[in-house]
Amino acid sequence: MKAVVYTGDRTITVEDRPKPVILAPTDAIVKVIHTTICGTDLHILQGDVPSCTPGRILGHEGVGVVDSLGVAVTNFAIGQQVLISCITSCGSCYYCRKKMPSQCESGGWILGNEIDGTQAEYVRIPHASFSLHVLPGTIDPKVAVTLSDTVPTSYECGILNGEIQPGSTVAVIGTGPIGLMSLQLAKNLFGPAMTVAVGRGTSRLETAKSMGANHTFSVLNGQDTAISSALAVTKERGFDVVIEAVGTVESFEIAQALVGPGGTIASLGVFGESCELHLEKLWNRNICLRTRLIDAVTTPDLLKMVEAGAIAPHFLVSHSFTFNEIHDAYEAFQAPSKHGALKVVVTMDEPTMNGPL
Amino acid sequence: MKAVVYTGDRTITVEDRPKPVILAPTDAIVKVIHTTICGTDLHILQGDVPSCTPGRILGHEGVGVVDSLGVAVTNFAIGQQVLISCITSCGSCYYCRKKMPSQCESGGWILGNEIDGTQAEYVRIPHASFSLHVLPGTIDPKVAVTLSDTVPTSYECGILNGEIQPGSTVAVIGTGPIGLMSLQLAKNLFGPAMTVAVGRGTSRLETAKSMGANHTFSVLNGQDTAISSALAVTKERGFDVVIEAVGTVESFEIAQALVGPGGTIASLGVFGESCELHLEKLWNRNICLRTRLIDAVTTPDLLKMVEAGAIAPHFLVSHSFTFNEIHDAYEAFQAPSKHGALKVVVTMDEPTMNGPL
Amino acid sequence: MKAVVYTGDRTITVEDRPKPVILAPTDAIVKVIHTTICGTDLHILQGDVPSCTPGRILGHEGVGVVDSLGVAVTNFAIGQQVLISCITSCGSCYYCRKKMPSQCESGGWILGNEIDGTQAEYVRIPHASFSLHVLPGTIDPKVAVTLSDTVPTSYECGILNGEIQPGSTVAVIGTGPIGLMSLQLAKNLFGPAMTVAVGRGTSRLETAKSMGANHTFSVLNGQDTAISSALAVTKERGFDVVIEAVGTVESFEIAQALVGPGGTIASLGVFGESCELHLEKLWNRNICLRTRLIDAVTTPDLLKMVEAGAIAPHFLVSHSFTFNEIHDAYEAFQAPSKHGALKVVVTMDEPTMNGPL
Amino acid sequence: MKAVVYTGDRTITVEDRPKPVILAPTDAIVKVIHTTICGTDLHILQGDVPSCTPGRILGHEGVGVVDSLGVAVTNFAIGQQVLISCITSCGSCYYCRKKMPSQCESGGWILGNEIDGTQAEYVRIPHASFSLHVLPGTIDPKVAVTLSDTVPTSYECGILNGEIQPGSTVAVIGTGPIGLMSLQLAKNLFGPAMTVAVGRGTSRLETAKSMGANHTFSVLNGQDTAISSALAVTKERGFDVVIEAVGTVESFEIAQALVGPGGTIASLGVFGESCELHLEKLWNRNICLRTRLIDAVTTPDLLKMVEAGAIAPHFLVSHSFTFNEIHDAYEAFQAPSKHGALKVVVTMDEPTMNGPL
Repeated sequence: MKAVVYTGDRTITVEDRPKPVILAPTDAIVKVIHTTICGTDLHILQGDVPSCTPGRILGHEGVGVVDSLGVAVTNFAIGQQVLISCITSCGSCYYCRKKMPSQCESGGWILGNEIDGTQAEYVRIPHASFSLHVLPGTIDPKVAVTLSDTVPTSYECGILNGEIQPGSTVAVIGTGPIGLMSLQLAKNLFGPAMTVAVGRGTSRLETAKSMGANHTFSVLNGQDTAISSALAVTKERGFDVVIEAVGTVESFEIAQALVGPGGTIASLGVFGESCELHLEKLWNRNICLRTRLIDAVTTPDLLKMVEAGAIAPHFLVSHSFTFNEIHDAYEAFQAPSKHGALKVVVTMDEPTMNGPL
Repeated sequence: MKAVVYTGDRTITVEDRPKPVILAPTDAIVKVIHTTICGTDLHILQGDVPSCTPGRILGHEGVGVVDSLGVAVTNFAIGQQVLISCITSCGSCYYCRKKMPSQCESGGWILGNEIDGTQAEYVRIPHASFSLHVLPGTIDPKVAVTLSDTVPTSYECGILNGEIQPGSTVAVIGTGPIGLMSLQLAKNLFGPAMTVAVGRGTSRLETAKSMGANHTFSVLNGQDTAISSALAVTKERGFDVVIEAVGTVESFEIAQALVGPGGTIASLGVFGESCELHLEKLWNRNICLRTRLIDAVTTPDLLKMVEAGAIAPHFLVSHSFTFNEIHDAYEAFQAPSKHGALKVVVTMDEPTMNGPL
Repeated sequence: MKAVVYTGDRTITVEDRPKPVILAPTDAIVKVIHTTICGTDLHILQGDVPSCTPGRILGHEGVGVVDSLGVAVTNFAIGQQVLISCITSCGSCYYCRKKMPSQCESGGWILGNEIDGTQAEYVRIPHASFSLHVLPGTIDPKVAVTLSDTVPTSYECGILNGEIQPGSTVAVIGTGPIGLMSLQLAKNLFGPAMTVAVGRGTSRLETAKSMGANHTFSVLNGQDTAISSALAVTKERGFDVVIEAVGTVESFEIAQALVGPGGTIASLGVFGESCELHLEKLWNRNICLRTRLIDAVTTPDLLKMVEAGAIAPHFLVSHSFTFNEIHDAYEAFQAPSKHGALKVVVTMDEPTMNGPL
Repeated sequence: MKAVVYTGDRTITVEDRPKPVILAPTDAIVKVIHTTICGTDLHILQGDVPSCTPGRILGHEGVGVVDSLGVAVTNFAIGQQVLISCITSCGSCYYCRKKMPSQCESGGWILGNEIDGTQAEYVRIPHASFSLHVLPGTIDPKVAVTLSDTVPTSYECGILNGEIQPGSTVAVIGTGPIGLMSLQLAKNLFGPAMTVAVGRGTSRLETAKSMGANHTFSVLNGQDTAISSALAVTKERGFDVVIEAVGTVESFEIAQALVGPGGTIASLGVFGESCELHLEKLWNRNICLRTRLIDAVTTPDLLKMVEAGAIAPHFLVSHSFTFNEIHDAYEAFQAPSKHGALKVVVTMDEPTMNGPL
C-alpha cells in the first residue's frame, strides 16, 4: 500500500509498504478514506518529536472503513464506517480508568508517532474498542476528520479546561483551527456574555468576527495595545476565561495579562520552552491555569452535537486533496496564510483503484 | 398611593394606601414602573398560601426607580433604575452564606406574601443591597420584569438543577412561561443533542417547536402514548435531563418515566400534595431528583446574558396593561389559553400623573 | 467442582458442576479463595429477582487466584491474587464510557444472577480486564471480600451520592453492614461536623456509637420520637446529608423528615415498592435525592485507602466459615441479630483438597 | 488606647491612640482580647507592602468582644465574643457575590494594611455583618485566633484549591504554620492514600511525621535528591496534589517536579517575583495550578469542624505573650527556628486594667 513516511530529513516521502495485519486480539485494521495533516506532523518534520523516528508512517487523524478485527473487538463490524481517534486508549490502565487516555500506559498519542499512522491506505489501530467510533451516516466524512483531533482538542483542552459558564467573558488567543473552533464552541455551547479573539492576521480576525466574536484585537498593533484594548472592554476586570491556543512565550504573556480575578487560563499550546509565570501579580488573584493533552473522551458527545447541529466544524475544512496530491496538501498546510488554509483533507484514491471494499 | 390588595375572598381590590417609608437602615423605597402577575399570586387568591393574609399588597416582581435609601445602602443611588428580585436576601445569615437566599432567615419569598409587594406605586424593599439590581439601560424595562422571577426560576430550578451538559438530551414537561423559558435556556446555553417538549395545548407545543424543540408530545393523546413516543426518540435510553415545570401528580409521573439511567429530574412545580416515587424502578438507575425555590443568585449573570443577546426573554411578554386595567390583567393571566397569555406586564400610570420623578 | 446453586424453592443446594472454561477472549477463570453472602442473595432465595433462574450458581463477591486468561486479557497474570468486582464492565459501551458500569450493556450485576457466580470453587469472569483488580499483598484477603460489593456500595451510593463535605451534618439510617460502613467512611474521609445513626437494635446502635456517631436514635421508641430527637440535635435545621441504607417505605419517610434545606438524600435501599414523596413539603427546600446501583468505579481508590489505613472495613467480617459449612453461613447471615452477624466470609477448602494451585 | 504601630523604618512601636469610633452604619467596634502576628506583618516591616503606610496600626487577626455596633448590624450583640476575619467583606459587590471577598471592592485584606488593625485594644471592623463571626464558647479563644487567617488560608488556598479527594497522594512543601496545618487538614478531612512533607528543618519535618506524614524529605540534602526521593514513593507517578506553602522560586520548582499527570498544584506563597513555568514539560500532562488569596468564606464551616474535633489547630499556638511583651512576641515570630515558634498569641492586659467590659 501507499504511505506517507517521515524521512528524518525534514521531509516526507510516499512509499510502498505492506498492508498492516492484526497483531493483537484487540486490534483493528482500518482502510483509510480521508485523513488530514496536523500541526504536530509539522513538528515531527522539524525534528521536534524524538519519539517519532525516521521511517514512520505519519498521521493520527482519519475516517475509514473497518477492514478486519481482532477476536476481542466485538463492538464494531467489518465494513462499518469509523472515526479514528488520535488517542489510543486501552481503557483499563491507571490513567484510562481516570478518564485520561492521553496518559494511557499502552496508548496515548502513538499513531503516526510511535507506531505507523493514518496517512496511508490502511492503518492498524490497537485497542480498537476504545480508539474507534462508529461514524453516523448523517455526518459528512470529510468534516468528520476534524473530530479525530481538532474538535475534541478545542473542546477538552480549551472549553472544558477553561470552565466556561453561561455569562462568562471569554478571550481566545490565536486564530488557527483550534482557536477558531474554540470560539465557536464557546459561543454555541455556553452562552458567554462576551467573546473576543486576539490574533495576528487581519483575515483570520475577520473570520473570528464573522463567527460572532464581539471584539477582535491584533497583536500587530503592539502587544501592549492589544492587551490594554482587550482589558478595556471588560471594564478592566479581566476575562473569566482565557483560551491560549498559540503556545509561545508571547501568547502566554498575553494570557496572564488578560485573566481576571477568579479566572481560568486554558493552555492548549505545544510548548517547546518554559515561560515566565507572573506569580508576583497572580498569587492573590485566585486564578487557575490548566494544561491538557487531548484525551478524546468527549468524542461520542461531540459526534452527537455535530449530528444535532449544535456545533458545526464544517468551516475547518478549507482544502481537499487526493492522496496523489499529498505534497501539495503539506505545502498548503505549511503556509496557511498564503493558502488561506485551516484543515486540509486528503482523500485516498477511488476504491476501484484498490479493488472492492 | 394605589395598590392591589388581597381581600381574602379569592379576589383583589385596588385601594389607596400610604406610601411606604424606610423602616431599617438597610431598606430602600422603590417607585414601581412595571410589575407583573405570577402563578403564585393566583395561588394566594385561591387561599393556598396561609402566610399571605388578607389586606396584603400583592406582587413580587417589578422594575422601578430608587425613591429613597436607608443609610446603610450604599450600592444604589436615588433615581437609579432597578430590577426588584422576588427573593429578599440579608446576605449574611446561615443560608445566604450558602447561596440559598430562598431560605434566608429574614427574607426569602416575603414580598407580596409576608410583607407588602410590588403591585403598587411604591414598595419597600428590605435588605436592598442584596435584593435589588441596577437595570442596564440596554434592557427593555418591560422585558426586565421577567428577570424578577420567571427567568431566574427557569435557570436555577430548571437548567442548573437539571445539570444539563453539552450533548445532553432534554425533556421539558410543561409549556407555560417557565417551561418555554427553560426550553430556550437549554437550547441557547448548553448545546443539547436533543430537546423535546411535553405539553397539553397544541398552540403552546407549536411555540415550543418554533423555539427549536426537536419533538413535541401532547398528553391529550394519552399519557402513555406521550411517554412511549418520547422514549422512542431516545432509542429507549430515556432523557439525560427532565425539567418538570407543571407540578402535578400526573406530570411527576411522566418525569419519572422519561428519565434515563444516570439522568436528572429538575422539579420546578409548586406541589400541593405528595407524589408517588417509583423507587422500585429507579433505585438502581442512578437518577437524581432536585427541588428548589428560586434563590435569585444568578440574576447578575442573567442580566449580562440578556445584554449579550445570549438569551432573549422578550417572547414572554405577551400582554401589556396599565395599572388602571389591573383587573383585565388578572383576567388575562387567569385564562392564559383563552388569551394566549404568557406574562402580562402592568405599567404604572404616567409619571406626570404622580408628579415628577 | 462444588458450587452453591439456587433451587428456585427458597433454598440453596451444593452441587457438583463442571469447572468453567474461557468462552470469550476477554474472559478469565478465577479459582475462588474466599466468598461471602449478600442481602441480594437472600432476595434471590425469596424469589424477588426474576433474572436469576433456578440452577444458577449464586454469589457476586470474592477473592481468588487467576486460573486462566482469555487471549485479550493482558493486565493480569495466571497465579495472581485478585479481587472480583460484583459489577462486570465491558469498559467501552455507552454507559461504561460514562463511568456507569452498573448499566453496562453486556455486564452490570450479572454474576450469580444472570450467569454463574462466585460461591463455587471456580468462576468465569467476563470482561476480566475491567472486572478484576489485583489484590495487594498487604490487605487481608478475608477483609478484601468486603471490597467486592459492601465497601464500594457504601462509598459510591452512600458517601459520594450524599455529597458529604467537611463540616456536613450526616444522618445514617440503618445499621447493617452498609449503614455502618457508610458511617465509618463519612467519619474517616470527610470530617463531618456531626454524624448520627438511626436504627432499630440497641446492639447495632451501640456499635455505631463506638464507631464515632455523635448521637444514635432508635425507631423502637417510635418513629416520630426518633425524627424529632434527631432534628433537635441539628437545632431543627435538618441534616445536610441523609444516607438511607434500609430500603423500606418507613425508612424513606424518616429520610425525608431529616433532610434539611439544601440537603441530599442518598438512597441505597433495594426497593420492592414505590414510596410517598412529600413534594408538598420539599418542593421549596432545595433538596436533592439520588439513587444508584454500585458502579464499582472507585474500587482502585478504595484499595489504596485500605492499604493506607484511611478506612478499615475489618469490622465487617463478623463470621468465618469453610465451604463445607455453607448452610451454617447462610443461616447466620439470614438471622443477623441472633448471630451478631455483619458479613460472613466463606473460605474454600484447603488447596490440598483440590490439587496444587 | 495602646496600639502596635508601623514606623516605616522596619520596626514597630507601641503608641497611645484614640479608641476608634463607628464611622458607617455597617461598622462594629471590637475590644480585642487576643491577637497574633502574621508573616505578612513581617513583609510590611520589610517595606514590601506599599499599601501599608507608616503610622498604621498593624494586625488582621484576633478575637474580642463586641463593644459597639452601627445601626445596620443586627446579627451581633454588644458583649458577644467574636472572631475577627482577616478579610473584610461587603457581601454585595461583584466579587463578594461570586464568593471572592478577597477581591471585595470595598474590603479584602485591608485590616492592618489600608486601615488600622487588631494589634490594639480596640479595632473598627467595617462591614461587620460579614467580617465577624460569633465565637462558640466551646472553642478556646487563644486557639480561635488561628481561625482569623492561618486555618482558613490552609483550607481554602491549600486544601480546596488542591482538590484533594479520598485516596489522593498529597505532597506539602513547607513546614511553617500553613504547611503543617494543610497537612493536618489533608489527613483529617480527606482520607488521602499518602501524605509527604518537603521541608528544610529537621525539627519541623519530625513534627510533620508525628502529625501523620507518611514520608518527609529535606531539601538540605539537595533539591534534586528531595525530588527524586519523593517521586520514588509514588512509583514515579508524581503526586495528585501538591500544596506549595513557601512561596519561593525554589519551592515552586519543586512543586512542578512533584506534580503527576492530572495533578493539581495549590500555590499559597506570597510571591515577590515571577517564576519559571515548565510548560515544555507540563503542557501535555493535564495539570492544574491555582492561586488564591484567602476569601474566608469557609470560616463558619471551620468553626464547626473545630467544635466537632474534626480538626485541631491547637498545636499552632506555640507561644503566648501579654501585650506588654509585644516586642518579645515579634522577636519570637521573626526567628521561628530559634524559638520553635509557630503562631504567637498576644493577649491584651486584664479587663480590670481598662475598666469593666
